[in-house]
Amino acid sequence: MVLWLLAVVTGLWLGQASAPDGSLPAPSNVPGAQYPRVHPDNSVTFRIKADGAQKVTIGTYELAKGADGFWSVTTRPYTPGFHYYSVVVDGFTTTDPGSQTFFGYGRQNSAIEIPGPESDFFAPKDVPHGAVRMEWYYSKATSRWRRVFVYTPPGYDRDRGTRYPVLYLQHGAGEDETGWSRQGHENFILDNLIAAGRSKPMIVVNENGTILPRPGGPPPPPRGPGAMIENRFTEFDEVVSRDLIPFIDATFRTVADRDHRAIAGLSMGGAEAMRVGVNHLERFSHIGLFSPAISSLDPATHYDARLADAAAFNKQLRLLWIGIGTEDTLHPGVRASHEALQRAGIRHTWVESGGGHTWTVWRKYLADFAPLLFR
Amino acid sequence: MVLWLLAVVTGLWLGQASAPDGSLPAPSNVPGAQYPRVHPDNSVTFRIKADGAQKVTIGTYELAKGADGFWSVTTRPYTPGFHYYSVVVDGFTTTDPGSQTFFGYGRQNSAIEIPGPESDFFAPKDVPHGAVRMEWYYSKATSRWRRVFVYTPPGYDRDRGTRYPVLYLQHGAGEDETGWSRQGHENFILDNLIAAGRSKPMIVVNENGTILPRPGGPPPPPRGPGAMIENRFTEFDEVVSRDLIPFIDATFRTVADRDHRAIAGLSMGGAEAMRVGVNHLERFSHIGLFSPAISSLDPATHYDARLADAAAFNKQLRLLWIGIGTEDTLHPGVRASHEALQRAGIRHTWVESGGGHTWTVWRKYLADFAPLLFR
Repeated sequence: MVLWLLAVVTGLWLGQASAPDGSLPAPSNVPGAQYPRVHPDNSVTFRIKADGAQKVTIGTYELAKGADGFWSVTTRPYTPGFHYYSVVVDGFTTTDPGSQTFFGYGRQNSAIEIPGPESDFFAPKDVPHGAVRMEWYYSKATSRWRRVFVYTPPGYDRDRGTRYPVLYLQHGAGEDETGWSRQGHENFILDNLIAAGRSKPMIVVNENGTILPRPGGPPPPPRGPGAMIENRFTEFDEVVSRDLIPFIDATFRTVADRDHRAIAGLSMGGAEAMRVGVNHLERFSHIGLFSPAISSLDPATHYDARLADAAAFNKQLRLLWIGIGTEDTLHPGVRASHEALQRAGIRHTWVESGGGHTWTVWRKYLADFAPLLFR
Repeated sequence: MVLWLLAVVTGLWLGQASAPDGSLPAPSNVPGAQYPRVHPDNSVTFRIKADGAQKVTIGTYELAKGADGFWSVTTRPYTPGFHYYSVVVDGFTTTDPGSQTFFGYGRQNSAIEIPGPESDFFAPKDVPHGAVRMEWYYSKATSRWRRVFVYTPPGYDRDRGTRYPVLYLQHGAGEDETGWSRQGHENFILDNLIAAGRSKPMIVVNENGTILPRPGGPPPPPRGPGAMIENRFTEFDEVVSRDLIPFIDATFRTVADRDHRAIAGLSMGGAEAMRVGVNHLERFSHIGLFSPAISSLDPATHYDARLADAAAFNKQLRLLWIGIGTEDTLHPGVRASHEALQRAGIRHTWVESGGGHTWTVWRKYLADFAPLLFR
């Protein structure tokens, strides 16, 4: 143990230096890990120790074995931003020890952050910083203690007379309540927007939208292309409306009315935001759908026909925001939904951006969406 | 993507059911993961998909390949508590996708929690709960933004007239500022102690004691058995004394004097707590060493001879607490240090417990140490 910890401490002193080829350890690496490395052209060298392996792959790349028992590959240039990846060694799919882990695809996963000028809006800067709190509260809907992440804006502890609006912001399928602070850097995005005067100071709440079954609980949701839009997310709806909102309003200095409450989410979280938001227009006045898992929405029938009377719906909702990347496999279904909403006269903001189904896009959506809230 | 996320959502509905043999998924698993499973006798079945592998090991256990391409093993009974583990597939050492990850050994690592009656003191109970905040502050000592974890006790936001003492509590080598909340469950330990009236409400601060080198910075610390006790931890000392304490006292409602400030840590963090605590007796009045990486302390010469005058030292320090497990490889060196302190007349609390160099022991030490603070 002693020898081991001396080795670790000494090993970390090797540090994170730039190589002669200009490459640098990825900012998403664990401290001291030299690989993966990002080159000036945004190509990446992965390097894995697996001296007894037959085959090592990362995504579509097959790594080659060196004489030292390390496998490596240098990729084509990546686009700047956040990319999940797995290492597959002889059929075993898992993490790269060089990477920090991020909960995605239902497990702790590796990811590589390719830095660039596009990273500026979520970089920690010399501006006042908010905090991200882990809070625990008892949920009657799920009969257990739940953890929730809560961003409080800069000055929250000091400005005791101030009350704040709240954005409930959800992750995607296979992710959890850590996603928006770890992968998403929501705190730095909001810190920077608030410092620039572009967003109102607000509280942001991240719950876990993955509801596990209870013995004797409801059956699994239906499968198939329409599943997400048909899914009632009953348990998550109960958690948010019966347990979470009262907890947040009792614990934080919120403005506890619908005009000062928004709900948004990405992918599955977008489907949840739409369902819970439309179910509770008495609670929410703003809804944000980031690359939502919503396909071919029919405003006349879906969501218990609550969108059928467009004039009444438009009057209640101050903002319905929908964004999707043109390279996202969900793009056709979301675009069709947008067109159906348009035909039905449902007022909404439509953003067709570049990019795919990635956190690179969702961070930008948060930075576009937050300034529109609570105006 | 759509098909994938449907598969994830549906897959999670398989849930975490007890098997006919009474085994259950470990509480440290990711949601929905059926393996590793803990049996009623605390033996564990690990199960890994690696259909192309030649050899799969976990610790000293070699897994056997089944016809379905999954490798598995059932271990001897574990002791209840927290156990790090790695999976080694054909020479590749990494995580088990079934486990949550915990930063240890310089990377994100798997671990298994064996539940038992011994888990009760850190279980979330029906008592008031504190929060754990991630805060960001700029450190002049390291010229960068640093993240610090801060536990605030129950009622912190409500009882605006109350000020609190502060415990600075550090992780071990190869770990980071997440250790005490993730592996350690410090928040539930304190919540339960405070609810029982056994501990004073206090703030607990976890920084990252792993200081990475800066270009042009000091050379690596010396190696060898005495390295930890000789290490001056200069940069960490500067971070704590110049940047962190002022930040905490400015941001939280602390009692900002030495009587209401303690520093403690485990393993390397114990060596750091001793170094920083003894260097700054004007700041700290309580020091806790949990299985500290301190070997054969010489009170006459070590720590710049600040312990050489026992009477003066005893007058300044209200508590020096040292705990070590008899199965810990550090035990002989720590026991020798205790005996040297005793001979030199340095007043301290000495706890020789069962157990090894593990979080199972450190959680108990926190529960033993916290009630002694700020009396």
